[in-house]
Amino acid sequence: MGGLLSIDEARARILSPLRPTPAETVALASAFGRVTAAPIAARRTQPPFDVSAMDGYALVAVDGKEGARLRVIGSAPAGHPFAGKLGPGEAVRIFTGSVMPEGADAVLLQEDAREENRIVVIGETTVAGRHVRRAGQDFSEGTPLVPAGRRLTARDIGLAAAGNHPWIAVHRAPRIAILATGDEIALPGESLPPGGIVSSNAHALAALAVAAGAEPTVLPIAPDDIAAIAEAAEATRGMDFLVTTGGASVGEHDLVRAGLSKRGFALDFWKIAMRPGKPLMAGRVGEVPMLGLPGNPVSAMVCAMLFLLPALARLSGLPGEAPPTEEVPLGASVPANDVRADHLRAKFARDDEGRTVVVPFPRQDSSLMRLLAEAEALILRPPHAPALAAGALVPVIRLDRLGI
Amino acid sequence: MGGLLSIDEARARILSPLRPTPAETVALASAFGRVTAAPIAARRTQPPFDVSAMDGYALVAVDGKEGARLRVIGSAPAGHPFAGKLGPGEAVRIFTGSVMPEGADAVLLQEDAREENRIVVIGETTVAGRHVRRAGQDFSEGTPLVPAGRRLTARDIGLAAAGNHPWIAVHRAPRIAILATGDEIALPGESLPPGGIVSSNAHALAALAVAAGAEPTVLPIAPDDIAAIAEAAEATRGMDFLVTTGGASVGEHDLVRAGLSKRGFALDFWKIAMRPGKPLMAGRVGEVPMLGLPGNPVSAMVCAMLFLLPALARLSGLPGEAPPTEEVPLGASVPANDVRADHLRAKFARDDEGRTVVVPFPRQDSSLMRLLAEAEALILRPPHAPALAAGALVPVIRLDRLGI
Repeated sequence: MGGLLSIDEARARILSPLRPTPAETVALASAFGRVTAAPIAARRTQPPFDVSAMDGYALVAVDGKEGARLRVIGSAPAGHPFAGKLGPGEAVRIFTGSVMPEGADAVLLQEDAREENRIVVIGETTVAGRHVRRAGQDFSEGTPLVPAGRRLTARDIGLAAAGNHPWIAVHRAPRIAILATGDEIALPGESLPPGGIVSSNAHALAALAVAAGAEPTVLPIAPDDIAAIAEAAEATRGMDFLVTTGGASVGEHDLVRAGLSKRGFALDFWKIAMRPGKPLMAGRVGEVPMLGLPGNPVSAMVCAMLFLLPALARLSGLPGEAPPTEEVPLGASVPANDVRADHLRAKFARDDEGRTVVVPFPRQDSSLMRLLAEAEALILRPPHAPALAAGALVPVIRLDRLGI
Repeated sequence: MGGLLSIDEARARILSPLRPTPAETVALASAFGRVTAAPIAARRTQPPFDVSAMDGYALVAVDGKEGARLRVIGSAPAGHPFAGKLGPGEAVRIFTGSVMPEGADAVLLQEDAREENRIVVIGETTVAGRHVRRAGQDFSEGTPLVPAGRRLTARDIGLAAAGNHPWIAVHRAPRIAILATGDEIALPGESLPPGGIVSSNAHALAALAVAAGAEPTVLPIAPDDIAAIAEAAEATRGMDFLVTTGGASVGEHDLVRAGLSKRGFALDFWKIAMRPGKPLMAGRVGEVPMLGLPGNPVSAMVCAMLFLLPALARLSGLPGEAPPTEEVPLGASVPANDVRADHLRAKFARDDEGRTVVVPFPRQDSSLMRLLAEAEALILRPPHAPALAAGALVPVIRLDRLGI
C-alpha cells in the first residue's frame, strides 16, 4: 500500500517495469520525431568523389599562376561529370558539387577568372586542394550517422537520406489508453449532471501524449460504477499503458481497484509528498502498466509532467528521466516550504538590470487551471526548502521545453 | 535583382507579403499544436458552484468548535449534490469537488473528524470559507481563456475543455510544396546517375515543416530542365508556399526562373551576407509565395531555420520572428569574422566551474551534414564581429528549441 513517497522514489517505481516498445519499419518520410530502434550507418561515402566547393574552373594547381592562360576543354555541370582527363595547360568549367575532373587538383574561383574564346585568364593564383571537397569528407560507407535510441530531428532525417536509407527502424509509438472516471463529469458540449463539471483531463492528457510521441486512445468516461470501470479495463488489451484520472478520493480508489481487478490487477496506492498532486495510483491491469492521476486538472497535469512524460519516454525507447531543470533567479521572495515538494506556477520577467527572472503567481491554489495554462515554468521547491529572497537561484522546469 | 542583403532585411522581405491561412473548425481533440484563429472565452463558470477542496464534512462554521458533536444528515459524493438544506448542529459528508450543501460555509477535514453512529466529533475548530473553492474562482462565463494567435498547448486544450468548447477555430495548417531540383540527385534507395548524390534536402525540409505545424507535399525531383520545372510549378496550385532547393548555382537560377515563369513568376535573386547560405531566391509563382534555398544540405537547413521557419509561423497565424537566441559563454576562442554573418555549428559543454558553455566545432565547412546533425546550437557571429576569447558571451540559437 505504501506511505508518503518522494517524487524521485515514485518515478523510479513507475519507470522500473517499463520496456521500450518493439521496432517497426517506417518510411524515412514518416520517421521525423520517432526514436531509432537501431543505429543508422552510412551506406555510401559523402561526397562520393572529390567535388568542387565553388563555381569556377578545375585545373592543375601548378598551372594556376596569376596572369596565366589555360585552354577550356569542357564543362562539367553537377550531375554531368567531365568524361576525359585534364592535362597541363587545360581547364574545365565546373560548378558547386561538380565532380573534379581526372587530373585536376585545384579550383579557380569564377570571380577570379575571365573567359574569352575558350581561353580562361587566371586572376588569382590557385592553391592545390583549395575549394575542393574530398571524397568522404562528411562520412564514409559504414560511418555511424545516428545512434539507436535517439529521437530523430529534421537534420537526422537529412543525414539518413544522405546515407541512402529509404527505411528506418524505429520504436512503435506507445499506445496509451486514457480513462477519466467520475459521475460528475461530462464531455465538452454535452449536458451536465447536477453538480457536474466539464471533463478536461482526458483531452489535455491526450495532447500531452501526442507531444511525447505516443498514440492516445481516449476511452469513454466511466461513471463511478464497478461494471463501467471493468468494461474500460477490457479496452486496455493491446495497449502499452493506461492512465486514469479521478477515482482517487476516499473510497473511490477502492471502486477503481474493484473495477480493474476484473482483468487481473496489481495496484499500489500512494500519497506522494508533493503539491499539487498527492494521491497517485500505479500498478498494472493484466500486462498493461497503469498510472492513476488525480482528478483535479492542475494536479493531473503537473503529475503528468513529472511521471507520465518520463514513462512515455521510456516506452518510446528513450531513458525517461525527470523533466530537465535550469537555475533561474527569483523575481520575488518565496516563503519556506513544508514537508511536501511544491511546484509553483510561475512566469518569466525581466528585472531592473534586464536579467531573466522567474516570478511565482501570488495564487497557487490547485483549482486554478487558467493560471497553469498561463504559466511558463514550474519552480521546484523541495521539502523543507527555506524561505528565499528575490535574486536567489531556484530550479525551474520550463514548460515550453516539455512541448506541452 | 538586389545586391548583398543582410539576414534581417532578407527575412523582412520574405515575411512582408505573407498572410495567415484562413480559419477552419477542428475538434478540440485535434487542436493541440494548432494556432487559434479567434479568442476562446469561457462558456461557463468554474467551479460552477462553491465546492469542497477536501474530503471531510460540510457544516456551519460557528458549529465547528473543537470537541463539538454534529449530526450527519447525509452524504454528497462528487456529482451527487446533497438535496436538502443544512442547519445548525448538522453536517454532511463531502468529498473533494462536492457541491457545498445549502447552508454550509465551512469544511471539517476528514483527518480532523471522527464519525460514529451518524455523529461526527470535531477534532479541530473550523474556519468559515476554508477548504471551500468559491464559484468562479478559476473563471466566470465570458472570461477570456486563450487569445487568438496562440499555438495551443496541452494545458490550453484542458482549459478550453473546462470552458466547454468541443470545437476550436484554428488557422488551417499551411500547405507547403517542396521541390528539389538537379540532374545529379536521386531519392534514397534509387539508382544514382554518374556523379550523382542522394537527395536529402526535401525530406529534411518536410520534417522541419511538420515541426512548424505545416503540411508538406514533397514534389518529384525536377531535373535541370525547363519543362520539368514548369510541371512542378503547376503542382503549386492551392499551396500556401513553395520552397525549392538547388538551382542556385551560376546559370541554374535562370533555368528555375524560366521554368517557373510558365505560371506567372516574380523572382528576386539575392546574395545574402551570410555563411553557410549565400544564394537565396524569393518571389512568387502565380499567387504562391516562394523561397529558393541553396542545394547544399547544411546551407539549406541553416537558411530554413532563419527564413522558412519564420515564414511558416507567419502563415500559421503567429508573428514569425527571428529564431530566439540566448547569450551563452564561449568554451573556446573564436576568430574575428569577415563581412558575412556566420552561424557556427556548436555543442554545449561544462567548463571547469560547471557552467554551461558553447563550443564551436573546429571544422565549419558547409559540406559537413554529420556535424550539423550533431550540433546543439548555432553561434551567431555578426558581420565584422571581433575575435573573442573563451568566456565571452555570444548569442546562440538552441536547435532543440526549434523542434528540429
